[in-house]
Amino acid sequence: MKKKKYVYFFGEGGKEMKALLGGKGANLSEMTKIGIPVPQGFTITTEVCNLYSKNNKEYPEGLDVEIEANMNKLEEKTGKKFGNKKNPLLVSVRSGAAVSMPGMMDTILNLGLNPDTVQGLIELTKNERFVLDSYRRFIQMFGNVVLGISSENFEKILEEVKEENKIKLDTELNIKALQKIVELYKAKVKEVTNEDFPEKPNIQLNMAINAVFDSWNNERAIAYRKLNDIPDNLGTAVNIQSMVFGNMGNDSGTGVAFTRNPSTGEKRFFGEYLMNAQGEDVVAGIRTPKEIEKLKKDMPPVYNQLVDVYKKLELHYKDMQDIEFTIEKGKLFLLQTRTGKRTAHAAVKVAVDMVDEGLITKQDAVLRVEPNQLDQLLHKTIDPKAKLEVIAKGLPASPGAAVGSVVFDAKKAHDLNEEGKKVILVRNETSPEDIEGMAAAQGILTARGGMTSHAAVVARGMGKCCIAGCEKIRINEKTKEFKIGDVVIKENDTITLNGNTGEVILGEVRLIDPELKGEFKTLMQWADSYRTLGVRTNADTPHDAKISVEFGAEGIGLCRTEHMFFQEDRIKAVREMILAEDIVGRKKALDKLLPMQKSDFIGIFKAMKGLPVTIRLLDPPLHEFLPQAKDDIKYLAHEMGVTEEKIEEKITALHEMNPMLGHRGCRLAITYPEIAEMQVKAIFEASCELVKQGIKVMPEVMIPLVGALKEFTILKKLAKNKADEIIKDYGVELDYKIGTMIEIPRACIIADQIAHEAEFFSFGTNDLTQMTFGFSRDDVGKFVPEYIEKGILEKDPFQVLDKEGVGSLVKMGVEKGRKARKDLKIGICGEHGGEPSSVEFCHKAKMNYVSCSPYRIPIARLAAAHAKLKEK
Amino acid sequence: MKKKKYVYFFGEGGKEMKALLGGKGANLSEMTKIGIPVPQGFTITTEVCNLYSKNNKEYPEGLDVEIEANMNKLEEKTGKKFGNKKNPLLVSVRSGAAVSMPGMMDTILNLGLNPDTVQGLIELTKNERFVLDSYRRFIQMFGNVVLGISSENFEKILEEVKEENKIKLDTELNIKALQKIVELYKAKVKEVTNEDFPEKPNIQLNMAINAVFDSWNNERAIAYRKLNDIPDNLGTAVNIQSMVFGNMGNDSGTGVAFTRNPSTGEKRFFGEYLMNAQGEDVVAGIRTPKEIEKLKKDMPPVYNQLVDVYKKLELHYKDMQDIEFTIEKGKLFLLQTRTGKRTAHAAVKVAVDMVDEGLITKQDAVLRVEPNQLDQLLHKTIDPKAKLEVIAKGLPASPGAAVGSVVFDAKKAHDLNEEGKKVILVRNETSPEDIEGMAAAQGILTARGGMTSHAAVVARGMGKCCIAGCEKIRINEKTKEFKIGDVVIKENDTITLNGNTGEVILGEVRLIDPELKGEFKTLMQWADSYRTLGVRTNADTPHDAKISVEFGAEGIGLCRTEHMFFQEDRIKAVREMILAEDIVGRKKALDKLLPMQKSDFIGIFKAMKGLPVTIRLLDPPLHEFLPQAKDDIKYLAHEMGVTEEKIEEKITALHEMNPMLGHRGCRLAITYPEIAEMQVKAIFEASCELVKQGIKVMPEVMIPLVGALKEFTILKKLAKNKADEIIKDYGVELDYKIGTMIEIPRACIIADQIAHEAEFFSFGTNDLTQMTFGFSRDDVGKFVPEYIEKGILEKDPFQVLDKEGVGSLVKMGVEKGRKARKDLKIGICGEHGGEPSSVEFCHKAKMNYVSCSPYRIPIARLAAAHAKLKEK
Repeated sequence: MKKKKYVYFFGEGGKEMKALLGGKGANLSEMTKIGIPVPQGFTITTEVCNLYSKNNKEYPEGLDVEIEANMNKLEEKTGKKFGNKKNPLLVSVRSGAAVSMPGMMDTILNLGLNPDTVQGLIELTKNERFVLDSYRRFIQMFGNVVLGISSENFEKILEEVKEENKIKLDTELNIKALQKIVELYKAKVKEVTNEDFPEKPNIQLNMAINAVFDSWNNERAIAYRKLNDIPDNLGTAVNIQSMVFGNMGNDSGTGVAFTRNPSTGEKRFFGEYLMNAQGEDVVAGIRTPKEIEKLKKDMPPVYNQLVDVYKKLELHYKDMQDIEFTIEKGKLFLLQTRTGKRTAHAAVKVAVDMVDEGLITKQDAVLRVEPNQLDQLLHKTIDPKAKLEVIAKGLPASPGAAVGSVVFDAKKAHDLNEEGKKVILVRNETSPEDIEGMAAAQGILTARGGMTSHAAVVARGMGKCCIAGCEKIRINEKTKEFKIGDVVIKENDTITLNGNTGEVILGEVRLIDPELKGEFKTLMQWADSYRTLGVRTNADTPHDAKISVEFGAEGIGLCRTEHMFFQEDRIKAVREMILAEDIVGRKKALDKLLPMQKSDFIGIFKAMKGLPVTIRLLDPPLHEFLPQAKDDIKYLAHEMGVTEEKIEEKITALHEMNPMLGHRGCRLAITYPEIAEMQVKAIFEASCELVKQGIKVMPEVMIPLVGALKEFTILKKLAKNKADEIIKDYGVELDYKIGTMIEIPRACIIADQIAHEAEFFSFGTNDLTQMTFGFSRDDVGKFVPEYIEKGILEKDPFQVLDKEGVGSLVKMGVEKGRKARKDLKIGICGEHGGEPSSVEFCHKAKMNYVSCSPYRIPIARLAAAHAKLKEK
Repeated sequence: MKKKKYVYFFGEGGKEMKALLGGKGANLSEMTKIGIPVPQGFTITTEVCNLYSKNNKEYPEGLDVEIEANMNKLEEKTGKKFGNKKNPLLVSVRSGAAVSMPGMMDTILNLGLNPDTVQGLIELTKNERFVLDSYRRFIQMFGNVVLGISSENFEKILEEVKEENKIKLDTELNIKALQKIVELYKAKVKEVTNEDFPEKPNIQLNMAINAVFDSWNNERAIAYRKLNDIPDNLGTAVNIQSMVFGNMGNDSGTGVAFTRNPSTGEKRFFGEYLMNAQGEDVVAGIRTPKEIEKLKKDMPPVYNQLVDVYKKLELHYKDMQDIEFTIEKGKLFLLQTRTGKRTAHAAVKVAVDMVDEGLITKQDAVLRVEPNQLDQLLHKTIDPKAKLEVIAKGLPASPGAAVGSVVFDAKKAHDLNEEGKKVILVRNETSPEDIEGMAAAQGILTARGGMTSHAAVVARGMGKCCIAGCEKIRINEKTKEFKIGDVVIKENDTITLNGNTGEVILGEVRLIDPELKGEFKTLMQWADSYRTLGVRTNADTPHDAKISVEFGAEGIGLCRTEHMFFQEDRIKAVREMILAEDIVGRKKALDKLLPMQKSDFIGIFKAMKGLPVTIRLLDPPLHEFLPQAKDDIKYLAHEMGVTEEKIEEKITALHEMNPMLGHRGCRLAITYPEIAEMQVKAIFEASCELVKQGIKVMPEVMIPLVGALKEFTILKKLAKNKADEIIKDYGVELDYKIGTMIEIPRACIIADQIAHEAEFFSFGTNDLTQMTFGFSRDDVGKFVPEYIEKGILEKDPFQVLDKEGVGSLVKMGVEKGRKARKDLKIGICGEHGGEPSSVEFCHKAKMNYVSCSPYRIPIARLAAAHAKLKEK
């Protein structure tokens, strides 16, 4: 058997070996291979890391021999000798995993320095200050990272010596001061560890390798991996590389650069550099780096070489690169190249540009952009340059950003908005009563409720920024203020919300408007050409419908009729209906609603231009339409001409312990068929009128919350009779469908029975998730964050579809449904319809479409394309 | 092909042919066959009924020929001729389905009478009054049943003639009056139908047969079938039988009898008769019938013959018979025999007696008693002789009966009970806070909540009468009264509850105590010898545990620890824990609870004598432990030494929109592990102390509401560590199990994963039903009754396990669970564990046991035996 290879000299590996060599190591090898100037070195594989972790910090046999051989090779290539006084080789020892974990693991520079090599190096460089500075940095880094001595110990010494010398900057330290620091550092090492600082380079190297492998399992790294879904068994590689120095004088320097602008995507070399400096100086921000263009003037040959290098790299990697370089005495070295992180804007532009440049295919371009990233393109965002005073953090329930004056009730929000004032609605939680206030507000902040609470769902539907479940805020509605710890925010104070992070910010912050560039449109067209899954929208108003079509919706998958009930002119009739003594009274009130509801549908149908529109019959429990506050009840009583007592009696009668599991959905239509009848009438009168005008419509009546077959058959019959009667009366031709929402576990179980009767299924995964988990989406804020922290749940199941549990029921529903009716049209209209991994699940489950809020349509379109392209 | 036979002459069929001949027809044939004197006749099959319904009221070919042939045979056997003036044959035409539907369908007597045959019969009987009375009855009955003339028309004529003649009773009508009535009746028929009353006997017969078949689909019959789960396609048979008359003079008579006492089961011929009367006279109650014993003196030979007959019948049918007989001029005829309905007492005694008599086997005896019937034996009942003023009807949520003074709050109930007063607790709905009041009350009446609402579940657990969801009552807690329409019941007024029917009765009614007779015990022992399914109980206190063992429980399947938290001495510590600022404060409060909880477990373990005890960790959301009423909050604030504001803040913080889907069950144990830890400590310290005393204990720790594997593994680890530590500290040997409740749909889906870790499953079918249907058991009263009425649901799924939906998930859970762990112990601890058809489901699903409230244990034991015996 061939002996296993644990160490790869740069050039022996390549970029395809990331898993074994880590990202950094693989790219250093790759660059070496294609002739990019890289400081020589070698990589110890990630496999060694795993064996080391597994075998109680024992290394595999033969590793030492391999390392020695590679050190020899390194000495040979560089012409230097490790530990040699005359011409000492110094190395860096760095971690590098397959996945980038910036700053999470440890690095040691300048390894190999000791009193001997320091002397040798001084003679060689004639630069005692530089060598001593490197030495004190090495002791500090090694002491901290390898020996585990808190860096404060060293910082303190440094500060003291600086004070003694009355200087402020490290660069001002003179040779004497540096010598003293080295002495004091070593004394401190002895004091803390009870041992002398190791002077033998080989011992330093071995200790450093151990430290890097150990750092894979330090707390910071474990936490980072958990947070970013990185498996623990990836392991890190160790890169040992000869040092080059950007701080060897004015013909030296260092810099970082992107091959294109990572913020805009513009095709222009973009970066910064500092002369006579080390990499950390660029990052630290003590000296201001120069724009990369300036290098053209500072060192023309190096600049030209750098331009050649970046072009070569981009052509080779076929993606925008993020590089680090050092110039040592006029000589250019590349220290790193990797795929550059970029904004959504840049991602889209780079992908489309690279297709135009012939670098990548359209499929590549589509796959280059993460669907979730598009969110950035669709909402206002906080100016990244702004200084923020973050006072609390809640759930980032609906993306975007908003600035406004704080108000605590919906009516006030509405009134102030009418006066042209921008407001932020702050509530403990919102209810359908607050809809108008939410619509009037710039953004919504709630103290309770999760990612799919009422506030969150409605806000996302409106494309409006919302922070939900900000449990730290304590609202006092009487005094009109809220507290966060000691901070008191009064009504009319200005705050800013960042819906992308959940941050609540004091005062006004500059916002940046969304831009829909040409490249974005192009990319979406490419995505559409690949995807097979349809994308519809959840829209309840002509306005939303119009936006949806602009965003590319292929129909409405969920039109919630109840949202129409809350508008000021309608709610009165709705309440009249609820308060009616009998069916006669109810029908009278419903007759008032009919023309309003009908005109809504006319508007929506027109906006959808003949695309299918799935309309859900009334879903929420009736109590949601009655007021809760004493004053509102009083007002309503006056308005309705009834006693307050009567309204309170009705509220009591309608009260439910668990309204989510109560008298709603088709249960309402069964007990009050007259409501469903009015809605069906509105749908079909609207449809027929438009058809008469020559406008195409495609209505689909959706019966919600079906759990027993007969619920569906009774209501289907009701709807069909009414519809056919109206169509006949109008004397038009009109195709329509009657289907159901599958949102109750029992419906999945008897999906075959239901499919015999229903023409389409739409999975309501919000409710299905609630019932499958037994989680109330309004209340999960109380424990789900802790569940995610403890790893009980990977993700909030209301955001990301739970494939294992809820997904099993969905699959069961799809399979049973299609078994009974081969051409059953199946979609999803829960919040998951706009979440990329859930969209992929729907694609795999062979659904016909997903439906999501208007502002997530492009995300769903792109995710659907990804799902299809990834199949191959 | 042999021609299908549509008509059976009595004697041609037999008792096994009930489906075809109906119960009555089959038994008349059977009796004829075994030589019991029965008026001759024949039966048209139920098959004809179905064909008639299906084919638009067309009869199958050849039926007329068969009927004619059988009429000829009847004439031959009786020596009379249908329509003949000299010796006319009169017949009755009666319906008779396979299942008894008393009074639901129609009957015509004396068919064949017309002016000719009336004359002939008068000559033959020399009793003109009798013949004319029969004639007017026939016209009335035929007119009503066959011609559809409202009986008021005839009643009015009868009353008028009686008034003219100044008499009160029908029997006082003289010949002239009867003649006039006949004339007026016929005129009325002509007036209403525009046709003469049909005089031809054959036409009468055909019309009567049509009418009986039509009556199968009259509204009354359809409603009765729906109510009693009788399939519509059973059809009714038609029995045509020669008339015999008990009203032909003092040597004639009629009676009904049971072969044993149907109320007590005593082996004594039991019945009543009237001389010179028709069957309807016995039922009508105008004349008081005599006890059957008297017949011995009135007509010794007939009595002796009757005794022979009943003995023969009982020996033949091997069950208690309910018979009808007529004596015509000294000759005995049996008109009907059927299995006699009986009380639970009688059912048990008859079954056991018949085994002793060698009539039936023990298996037969066990199968003879319906499990649900036993409920009667286990609770107080309303004296059946009492006159009742029923003022409202709610759901019969917990059986039994109770008398007491009305109180509206738990504290008052408790206080009055202490004073020795019997009270009925009346609440809109109960909450765990009311527990002590419920325990103190004789019975509970709630305005809201279904069969498995808090009130219902707790009351059943306590074996206490409860009427829930009595939606008609309107409670006013301020004025301390409730209204039902105009009736006002004030505090301290006495009412009586009938938990078996749901009736609320004004005033005090006499109650009958439950009796557990020797035969009952015997029967239960036989049942135990057949069943393979275990029966455990749901018990939370030593007292309940003791009762359960007496009722035959083989362990505790569900011990709800939270019920222990509500007792006055504990609730304070519980509240202290909830109000604590941090874990230190919580632990301090928990330390106070520990000894109390431990002593509970000691009591329960002792009562269970080494039988397994499954203890569920804290399940309900914490807010249930805090008070709601302003006054109680004030009191608590004072008690705890905190501000009211603080308590209200906590209540607000704990508030949930849908507590059933909220922060409860294992979710509490995950976020507050210290609570679970205290409970585990209490369980194992109690166990170990008893083991040290030489007392056997078998604790099983049950983790509720698990939906994700890690919830279970985290808590299992916590419990196991704590348990093993305590066992080690005590230095004892103790076996225990750690398992989980399967009550969330997702748990059924991932049951295989869970079973790898859990040692037992207990299906919590209450919650599972809630989540599978999306029904809140507290709120279903709002629509489930209508669902059942409309046939959307067959039964309330909280009472009878929904085999199709919930059952599918249970089966999935059992199969997946056993796949992962072959010997996984599986039980059910929802309310369904005491419902016979659900018990049968559990048996078939191969569970190890069911667990039910103490007072349902015998029912579960018997149902389990039935399930096993029915397998064969």
